Amino acid sequence: MTPFLSRRDLQFQLFEVLDTARLPERPRFAEHSREVYDDVLNLAYNVAEKYFANHAREADLNEPHVEGGKVKLVPAVKEAMEATRDAGFFSAHHDEEWGGLQLPWVVTQAVQANFKAANIASSGYLLLTLGNANLQRVFASPEQKEKYMRPMLEGRWFGTMALSEPHAGSGLADITTTATLREDGTYSIRGTKMWISGGEHELGENIVHLVLARIAGAPAGVKGISLFLVPRYRINEDGSVGESNNVVLAGLNHKMGYRGTTNTLLNFGEGGETIGEIVGEPGRGLAQMFHMMNDARIGVGIGAVMLGYAGYMASLDYARERHQGRLPSSKDPHSPPVAIIEHADVKRMLLRQKCYVEGGLALGLYAASLVDDLNTGPEAEREDVHLLLDLLTPIVKSWPSKYSQEALSDAIQVMGGAGYTRDTPVEMYYRDNRLNPIHEGTEGIQGNDLLGRKLTQANGRGLELLLARMQADLKAAEEHAELNDLRVALGTALEQATTALQNLLGRAAELGPDRLLANSTTALDLLGHPVVGWMWLRQAQAAARALPGSRGDDADFYRGKVHAARFFAHYELPKVRVWADLLASADTTTLEMQPEWF
Amino acid sequence: MTPFLSRRDLQFQLFEVLDTARLPERPRFAEHSREVYDDVLNLAYNVAEKYFANHAREADLNEPHVEGGKVKLVPAVKEAMEATRDAGFFSAHHDEEWGGLQLPWVVTQAVQANFKAANIASSGYLLLTLGNANLQRVFASPEQKEKYMRPMLEGRWFGTMALSEPHAGSGLADITTTATLREDGTYSIRGTKMWISGGEHELGENIVHLVLARIAGAPAGVKGISLFLVPRYRINEDGSVGESNNVVLAGLNHKMGYRGTTNTLLNFGEGGETIGEIVGEPGRGLAQMFHMMNDARIGVGIGAVMLGYAGYMASLDYARERHQGRLPSSKDPHSPPVAIIEHADVKRMLLRQKCYVEGGLALGLYAASLVDDLNTGPEAEREDVHLLLDLLTPIVKSWPSKYSQEALSDAIQVMGGAGYTRDTPVEMYYRDNRLNPIHEGTEGIQGNDLLGRKLTQANGRGLELLLARMQADLKAAEEHAELNDLRVALGTALEQATTALQNLLGRAAELGPDRLLANSTTALDLLGHPVVGWMWLRQAQAAARALPGSRGDDADFYRGKVHAARFFAHYELPKVRVWADLLASADTTTLEMQPEWF
Repeated sequence: MTPFLSRRDLQFQLFEVLDTARLPERPRFAEHSREVYDDVLNLAYNVAEKYFANHAREADLNEPHVEGGKVKLVPAVKEAMEATRDAGFFSAHHDEEWGGLQLPWVVTQAVQANFKAANIASSGYLLLTLGNANLQRVFASPEQKEKYMRPMLEGRWFGTMALSEPHAGSGLADITTTATLREDGTYSIRGTKMWISGGEHELGENIVHLVLARIAGAPAGVKGISLFLVPRYRINEDGSVGESNNVVLAGLNHKMGYRGTTNTLLNFGEGGETIGEIVGEPGRGLAQMFHMMNDARIGVGIGAVMLGYAGYMASLDYARERHQGRLPSSKDPHSPPVAIIEHADVKRMLLRQKCYVEGGLALGLYAASLVDDLNTGPEAEREDVHLLLDLLTPIVKSWPSKYSQEALSDAIQVMGGAGYTRDTPVEMYYRDNRLNPIHEGTEGIQGNDLLGRKLTQANGRGLELLLARMQADLKAAEEHAELNDLRVALGTALEQATTALQNLLGRAAELGPDRLLANSTTALDLLGHPVVGWMWLRQAQAAARALPGSRGDDADFYRGKVHAARFFAHYELPKVRVWADLLASADTTTLEMQPEWF
Repeated sequence: MTPFLSRRDLQFQLFEVLDTARLPERPRFAEHSREVYDDVLNLAYNVAEKYFANHAREADLNEPHVEGGKVKLVPAVKEAMEATRDAGFFSAHHDEEWGGLQLPWVVTQAVQANFKAANIASSGYLLLTLGNANLQRVFASPEQKEKYMRPMLEGRWFGTMALSEPHAGSGLADITTTATLREDGTYSIRGTKMWISGGEHELGENIVHLVLARIAGAPAGVKGISLFLVPRYRINEDGSVGESNNVVLAGLNHKMGYRGTTNTLLNFGEGGETIGEIVGEPGRGLAQMFHMMNDARIGVGIGAVMLGYAGYMASLDYARERHQGRLPSSKDPHSPPVAIIEHADVKRMLLRQKCYVEGGLALGLYAASLVDDLNTGPEAEREDVHLLLDLLTPIVKSWPSKYSQEALSDAIQVMGGAGYTRDTPVEMYYRDNRLNPIHEGTEGIQGNDLLGRKLTQANGRGLELLLARMQADLKAAEEHAELNDLRVALGTALEQATTALQNLLGRAAELGPDRLLANSTTALDLLGHPVVGWMWLRQAQAAARALPGSRGDDADFYRGKVHAARFFAHYELPKVRVWADLLASADTTTLEMQPEWF
């Protein structure tokens, strides 16, 4: 079986590029060690291989469907959830008092990367549940956590995020689901929620929906939205599962990919009362959701990375095995065909994939390490870390979503007709990943978030911090001559990007908000490419440091890192200039286009 | 129902951008008139709407499968073929003596554009048959044409191209199917062919496979390959269909898209003898195939365009209807959400689609008009037309294959979650079109063809001719001030592209073939973008000429053309510089990457 990720690379990212092995110096991780992390990662790989990879295609071919009023999944999904629970991964990053291992977030993300690469659709049930529980951990009352979160950490109950409605997807401000206060302080919930992943299934004893709704009389817009815990089945005094809470499955969505993750239309309060509990104060719903958004968006970004990664692995395997054609310099028809990995254009496609997925993984794990710094790093730095993480989040979410799709297109192309069939996995990854630029905030939303909010908050302190870190690494890279190409290209790209952004943002008042944001999605590339270039600089630096003492496979691995960095310098970073020019020009072509001209 | 193409645009391309209405001045088309062409196009649209669009999704959801040893398709496919036959479209471009209308190739392509946009998969059965018949028309003997081609033009028999084998897809030089001369001058064919579209079905009375095979003792490589007519059922003396010819279905390929087009693995000579007739002389097989390749590749390019076009239409419709969010300048939560077509980023995605698909259509039809010039234009110009067409063909095939995928990604993105589901057609188009960069010569093959052959043949005369035509149009555009942006951007891009190409090609001997071609796929973009920019200049010129006398919808249509041209100038052509720099540098990064470093 083709591996779905490179374990060597995951180790490299965590322990050679990032300082993960030093996290046990922090009090929260004092019980840990490098060996603990290695063991956890090995366990994750084994669970992913045995219980996730085994049914990725089966679940794709046998979509969730309604049978006897219940949503049926292939049985292997439940086995995967049980194996995950038995391995402790529903609670691994939680406090010991909640049964967790207090795993750092960066290790948690590396663990989840295995499940995502092996089977993104089944990983969805786990990750939605973890996201839901994480929100409860921060905002729910102690009683609520005991009631709702504990069974989720025990892997017995599952969770969803129920935000969108049929008429309100990206525009959450316009949701109309209502919450009416009941005498006992709970709320009666009525409305319809759309695109709810994991909204109905029989994987566990209960499903806890986190529902955005409006309390009667609340103001219009986002300020009138509150957040509610709404179980599928009501919960008895003793915590056991009781009668139906009248959350009714109104339909399943049939998607291009991610087919194993059931996606639902749910009616709340149909055929009886749906009762929910408010989380925190009224009117804080969207703010609470957004507080968790960094985590969720990093998670989506890493999911995208891992789909691309699995495709890269598959096409790399194929390129080594498949023999076809001859080099241009050798047209002797009697010579044997070469392995296609020898063809320059195939190498180009493999290098591009390598750059996108290993660069994306470096970025995702870097962001996850910032989450750790935010929670457990030096107190004095936390405000800065927060601003930096805020700035990077739209890039961490959108960049891999976009470029993993490019990588997967290359994976298909390397494999030719075979890649276009269901006999190989890459067409499935390609269908799966196309969701990632849509959910958890579309590219347009990420672009507006980056350009309209993150770059300007705290007087642009986030960008300042980012540049300081990048400049420090650029400086340090000077000692390795083999990094010169990337160092110079990155310096140039960074200069172009920051000049363009500062130029544009400096004219914000003059331009007005519509024109300022007219090309905001370009900002994702404009800053994203240098940021990933920086991730390659960090990887190549680590490789260059290790190379002199390395031999055999290790030396090959490090040479590949250094060479991929050169590829990023020559083939990717020169694009930055085009984006910089466009953004700096505050181009009005789209604004001036009239709908009736189409 | 959302239209699958803009009939207004098709008219514009044929009669306002191209001089199609003047073709009746040529003797072969003397019976024609603009009205004849309009009628034919109306008929094509109606057949496409009624008999092709009706089952596009049905055929996608109900893939061809084997039942009782036969390949079953949804019944609507056969109805579509019958309607197409009854409308005369199996023979429309053929000579009157063969029952045809002698339609020009450009009109034939415009006709087929309708079927492709309405249902690419079902159009495949028609187009494979036409391609097969076209090859016979040029290379088969009169007896063979009577025997094999006539029933195909009558829509009774169908055709395939049987080139690839399991171990030889892109590398056709290595095929091993054998042909052994029989006493009666026919050949006994043995071997296995892979990826044969339309290889088995019950749509007609017979299937004629055009099979590449090696006669025993033939030299290795392409020079030893001959072409054979191999019917599924042997043909009786009276032309009727006889016993099985032992072409055995060994399996169906299950693809990501294009699902309605059955794709087969075929064994020739299994369980009995398979008899075929040679086409022309031995050893000419690949040359004969390549002679038809221009047509086939233009056809694939236009197919890609039409998938993108149908997606553009669907997302445009959706963007007008769907209301979501507010402009950045208007955050009042009490204001109603706007139609998403008002959002700058949605306009950007629609403009990009418009540029890619309308530009691609202009290019495809321009190439088709060159085929007409080659066959019926002034004799003295034909050699030049041939060189120009040869040069453009790899771009006509590859550019829309790549950029329609970008367009379709945008179509999905505009439609958000809805676009990702099977409730709308765009996810299907996206899956369908991903085949186009693979079949009929991969991108890598097109790149090598362009850079390694077409740009240098006849001492670069093709590029000279292209530049002369482009410069003439650039000159003519000077009279329209509203075209200045595109005119200047195109002039710059063209200069960058030609300088880079001439620079690289001038060093060919020094670089050697491997390095010369190391980045050849980049040449497809490098020349493709200016060529499509030129197509936009031609469209915008036609629109600018017509605008002063236009009102209402017409004026809006023309303004849209002029504005899209500006978009292409601002958002697309600046990319050319990046490709020019890469190609001119003769970058060796891919060549130097070692397989073991991945």
